[in-house]
Amino acid sequence: MDLAQLHQLLEPLFPGLMGVRLTEATPTRVTATMLVRPDLCTAGGILHGGAHMAFADTLGAVGTVLNLPPGKRTTTTDSSTKFIGGAAVNTTVSAECVALHRGRTTMVWQTSLRNEAGKLCSVVTQTQLVLD
Amino acid sequence: MDLAQLHQLLEPLFPGLMGVRLTEATPTRVTATMLVRPDLCTAGGILHGGAHMAFADTLGAVGTVLNLPPGKRTTTTDSSTKFIGGAAVNTTVSAECVALHRGRTTMVWQTSLRNEAGKLCSVVTQTQLVLD
Amino acid sequence: MDLAQLHQLLEPLFPGLMGVRLTEATPTRVTATMLVRPDLCTAGGILHGGAHMAFADTLGAVGTVLNLPPGKRTTTTDSSTKFIGGAAVNTTVSAECVALHRGRTTMVWQTSLRNEAGKLCSVVTQTQLVLD
Amino acid sequence: MDLAQLHQLLEPLFPGLMGVRLTEATPTRVTATMLVRPDLCTAGGILHGGAHMAFADTLGAVGTVLNLPPGKRTTTTDSSTKFIGGAAVNTTVSAECVALHRGRTTMVWQTSLRNEAGKLCSVVTQTQLVLD
Repeated sequence: MDLAQLHQLLEPLFPGLMGVRLTEATPTRVTATMLVRPDLCTAGGILHGGAHMAFADTLGAVGTVLNLPPGKRTTTTDSSTKFIGGAAVNTTVSAECVALHRGRTTMVWQTSLRNEAGKLCSVVTQTQLVLD
Repeated sequence: MDLAQLHQLLEPLFPGLMGVRLTEATPTRVTATMLVRPDLCTAGGILHGGAHMAFADTLGAVGTVLNLPPGKRTTTTDSSTKFIGGAAVNTTVSAECVALHRGRTTMVWQTSLRNEAGKLCSVVTQTQLVLD
Repeated sequence: MDLAQLHQLLEPLFPGLMGVRLTEATPTRVTATMLVRPDLCTAGGILHGGAHMAFADTLGAVGTVLNLPPGKRTTTTDSSTKFIGGAAVNTTVSAECVALHRGRTTMVWQTSLRNEAGKLCSVVTQTQLVLD
Repeated sequence: MDLAQLHQLLEPLFPGLMGVRLTEATPTRVTATMLVRPDLCTAGGILHGGAHMAFADTLGAVGTVLNLPPGKRTTTTDSSTKFIGGAAVNTTVSAECVALHRGRTTMVWQTSLRNEAGKLCSVVTQTQLVLD
């Protein structure tokens, strides 16, 4: 799947609601940007912690899908996040998701989310189970 | 803050976008429901993993706020999620968030998210740092 | 396997080195105690964070083994820990591990570790993958 | 503190019991090796999951201590681990711990543990709280 096909798939889903824009999607690396709209924030005008996690979860799932053998599917079994810094409303955050492990049974992806200044805001590490 | 005030606070923010409805909010327990709208889903018509996490994160933050001494604020530092089962589109999920620890420096909250049949779908454990 | 058989299995392994004493082991609940020896501590005379995690990991693995169908085996894929309080040297900590999920593909166990006063010291949630 | 001083400090504690050998310890990077002794293993002759976590936890704590301002101390508040591969008995594992964040209130460290063939076995991400 190329970026246009992925966007078409994601558009009616949660990533579409949040405005996730994929900028690269290969079997080892997925990158994206997202505008910190007011309705993605928590109190204080910073990106909601849940939006950090949902943004990252999307990238790890896309990366896994790009590695699945035919006839297989995937589900996230675990996700853990360290929050490090805030991302202000009306700025754009960017995320890079890389594979730590791509096995037959599980894959592990880690996403680093940065603000416009390039400062690390959160790190999300997730395990994807590969299912028949 | 009572439920109406909390809803007014959350409405323009990410929990409002997702349609989180608080049903109880006390210093030891926060509960809520959420309709699994199509635009909260991932492929396959089940609630997006990120929506599980964002729903739970909201409850843990509300619980912490209800315990904050005057003049203090909070931020989530860590969140870890175990995904156990899916929640189908157009059903309603419910969540219960309870305090595992309420200290002066950190609070730990755990949210269990269940589908309409009462089956456990995910468990989210988060640490909130209390800041000056 | 009964407690005596489990202890015989664990004795030459890491749980034996640490002095883990199982007190109950059923398919839904595993409990144990451990003396906080000086060589299980970190600086300051409190139980090392790694010893919290290793103690808990042992209980979740035992619980999983007691649920495995014949011919299957298990491995931990994920573990996440919240540290809440310290356990002093020369006291005894106790742990209770309960199943949050027992599926065919994965099991999720949560261990609560308490000090002699009954205060919660840490909570460890782990995912066990069931393998052929 | 140099390596000799750190080893002297750790020797009577849990890292000493496990045989952790620091090979580098700077404010941004801590490395170490550990022999996979039989009494550090789980059933099947591979390094116990708890030993992975305890090894890593030690490195993150050392890294934090090397960054603490005078009069401050630290405690681990959260640790999350992805297990990726096994490390066989009587081999040597090595770990590299790097800082993802070094703030005034929290520090985040990530440890990658590899087997003798250089294959990634586990990734541990931990949050250290800086306390007065």
